[in-house]
Amino acid sequence: MTDARLADLATRLPGLRLLTDAADLEHYGRDWTRRWTPAPLAIALPASVEEVQGVMRWASGHGVAVVPSGGRTGLSGGAVAANGELVLSLERMNRVLAFDPVDRMLTVQAGMPLQAVQEAAKAHDLVYPVDFAARGSCTIGGNIATNAGGIRVIRYGNTREWIAGLTVVTAAGERLELNRGLIKNSSGYDLRQLMIASEGTLGIVVEATVRLTSPPPPSQVMLLALPDLGALMQVFALFQSRLSLQAFEFFTDVALRHVLAHGAQRALEGDYPYYVVTEFDAAGEAAQEAALAAFEAGVEQGWILDGVIAQSEAQAAALWRLREGITESVAPRKPYKNDVSVRISAVPAFLQAMQELLGREYPQFEVVWFGHIGDGNLHINVLQPDDLDDAAFIAQCEQVTKRLAATLHDFGGSISAEHGIGLVKRPYLESTRSAAEIALMRGVRRAFDPQGILNPGKLFAPEPT
Amino acid sequence: MTDARLADLATRLPGLRLLTDAADLEHYGRDWTRRWTPAPLAIALPASVEEVQGVMRWASGHGVAVVPSGGRTGLSGGAVAANGELVLSLERMNRVLAFDPVDRMLTVQAGMPLQAVQEAAKAHDLVYPVDFAARGSCTIGGNIATNAGGIRVIRYGNTREWIAGLTVVTAAGERLELNRGLIKNSSGYDLRQLMIASEGTLGIVVEATVRLTSPPPPSQVMLLALPDLGALMQVFALFQSRLSLQAFEFFTDVALRHVLAHGAQRALEGDYPYYVVTEFDAAGEAAQEAALAAFEAGVEQGWILDGVIAQSEAQAAALWRLREGITESVAPRKPYKNDVSVRISAVPAFLQAMQELLGREYPQFEVVWFGHIGDGNLHINVLQPDDLDDAAFIAQCEQVTKRLAATLHDFGGSISAEHGIGLVKRPYLESTRSAAEIALMRGVRRAFDPQGILNPGKLFAPEPT
Repeated sequence: MTDARLADLATRLPGLRLLTDAADLEHYGRDWTRRWTPAPLAIALPASVEEVQGVMRWASGHGVAVVPSGGRTGLSGGAVAANGELVLSLERMNRVLAFDPVDRMLTVQAGMPLQAVQEAAKAHDLVYPVDFAARGSCTIGGNIATNAGGIRVIRYGNTREWIAGLTVVTAAGERLELNRGLIKNSSGYDLRQLMIASEGTLGIVVEATVRLTSPPPPSQVMLLALPDLGALMQVFALFQSRLSLQAFEFFTDVALRHVLAHGAQRALEGDYPYYVVTEFDAAGEAAQEAALAAFEAGVEQGWILDGVIAQSEAQAAALWRLREGITESVAPRKPYKNDVSVRISAVPAFLQAMQELLGREYPQFEVVWFGHIGDGNLHINVLQPDDLDDAAFIAQCEQVTKRLAATLHDFGGSISAEHGIGLVKRPYLESTRSAAEIALMRGVRRAFDPQGILNPGKLFAPEPT
Repeated sequence: MTDARLADLATRLPGLRLLTDAADLEHYGRDWTRRWTPAPLAIALPASVEEVQGVMRWASGHGVAVVPSGGRTGLSGGAVAANGELVLSLERMNRVLAFDPVDRMLTVQAGMPLQAVQEAAKAHDLVYPVDFAARGSCTIGGNIATNAGGIRVIRYGNTREWIAGLTVVTAAGERLELNRGLIKNSSGYDLRQLMIASEGTLGIVVEATVRLTSPPPPSQVMLLALPDLGALMQVFALFQSRLSLQAFEFFTDVALRHVLAHGAQRALEGDYPYYVVTEFDAAGEAAQEAALAAFEAGVEQGWILDGVIAQSEAQAAALWRLREGITESVAPRKPYKNDVSVRISAVPAFLQAMQELLGREYPQFEVVWFGHIGDGNLHINVLQPDDLDDAAFIAQCEQVTKRLAATLHDFGGSISAEHGIGLVKRPYLESTRSAAEIALMRGVRRAFDPQGILNPGKLFAPEPT
């Protein structure tokens, strides 16, 4: 620890855990993207809000850039530290601080994994309903930084809807208590909402008060096989009108092939181009009959070719694995990812345009897509061929992303539905946000962080100095 | 129209409707507060977004302050124009622009009254569920400006939850399309959320895309009479645990006296200190039996002294009038209003503290209080005695509000639950927001409106120049 700035940090905060080993720098310097070579200055692992404040005062004093760090499961490079930044990891701040049964709120430290938050809620017979496959590794702080959505948005909305209060440390090291668990509070700008999805560029989220809800009624899980994309929207409309949906997720035959090769269990005998995993309320016989009737109506129309309904929790988990295992199953193929959204009503036309675009632009690549169709959110994973090196592969994909971004612009969609902008989507921000909006965003950032030390380069390029 | 600036405006926008008659200046220059003498420069009534843009370009050029104006039902002076401002009334922009049944969204102009939005939703068998007594006069734009809450927050949340997109004209006259109806969009700061509750200080909301939902199940309305404030929270907990509540509103004997004197119909024979109007799902016999059982359990515990359940829609409306008629019934007494909130769990202790404070500080005044107890929101109306002039009355009330604000600060509450800060609550903003937060809010405002021409003086004092 020969760096004078780090020596000063150690002097100011003698109790602060600091890591500078090469292995630690690499581990904490990157997220699930693999495009950047980690090169942080050091890793700080504060154990309290006061230590975070001390770190930020030190960083402001020295002009050191700080990268806030949660589970680093991000897919947009939002937690990458490749330019001598201090990584501020919240992983030691992972405890429940308070629970109130009347408020039905849980206050937790930002480094708590999503699954631990869910379990803490469950211990009180309540539910924190935001959920997705990375639940075991991602943290609630990271979820807030990107306004994470996931597989239950159709029922419960995004992370934003569940945050009743945030404790934030500013660039200058001040502690903010934003909204403090109030249900009604019209006292000026809602900085809590502004902080959500700001990707660590406006402040460090150190604690969160999350709303909880009653457990949903008993549910059932169904796997459906469909002939084409047109049928997908028809089945969605059919099921939405007749059932109380908790989730409605689709994926393709290519995705299924990968997840089966990765150890998941086949649930249907035949091979079909498209699949849906759906979960819906099924308390009582009437609800179960309604589900079967909806299924049969879909079969009669030719929109559903085959299907299976889970008969046990184990089978439900196995069906869910077909969808949730996709990301992990394709990870070894270093997929190039797009995570896009349009209005729900625009999904059919957009899927059509996408299918044409991908078929035309990626004839040589294997493309795995899946999505949360009820939210207008589509995930596209382009798999890297063995005979192409990283740089050439990414360069080719970026060319297609330019066209995709233009298509999204025409549809009024978003280049990032739930992954955030980070480094990866930064070149395409203009497809989703106008120049006037970006100028205002930059102005907001200057108001919060005039030195530009909070996660610089993420979301937008650093200010010209 | 001898003012050179107005002559220039008329030249730039020949089609723009401009009013300068004294009666119009008075009518459009104030809201439901009566503390300020209206003195606007003129009233502009644009008919299109382009005209609003033209007005803002003109205002920027001349440095003229602009007060955006909806139904002017505000209770915090947010729409008051008392300093030569141009009032920009959205009242001619009151049409439905689009409806999409798949998105279940309605796009409307900002000047549309809330009730018209509700009726437009109903025409499609859907519901815009934010609701309160001023529905016929207030506009959706004003609802957005204060993040209006109302009587169904316990079930549906505040306005914020229902806004999927906003069209905003900036101080410089630029048009922003914020979020565009997307369900999932993690592409940088959510300026839509920032705009909500900004009271016209960051931009002019000209159009909104609101989410709609399915109609709630059939409901029943009950009036309850309670002995004391302790019983109030007990009955709320009891009813919340057994019924699916849509609303749970309380008021006092003093409030009832006023509303009865104002023409409402008595529903219970006896006189009691506290009353509750509650509405809950009651589809089918089981739900109705559950309601009766909850009522009887409350009676057995001594928490409920009497009650009545509406047997018809007309009777339900009559019971609701007992609660919703309060504001109108006390209006002639020029009430001094507080609209405060705390966390739900803090309500009992806060009510206790409030009761002591009001009894001690206002022994000579009649105080009418009521509130949305399930949201932690309490409305306090101090009625002006006949023998006290306006200035003396307000001065005395302001002294008490200082103490109330200090109590709220101790409870972590808010000085404005749903009315906004405007001019009325500006002196007390510091009780709810820290100095660091207010500094950041001012910074955000400068980013959006460097000249400070958007509703200056509302929310915080104008910047020192």
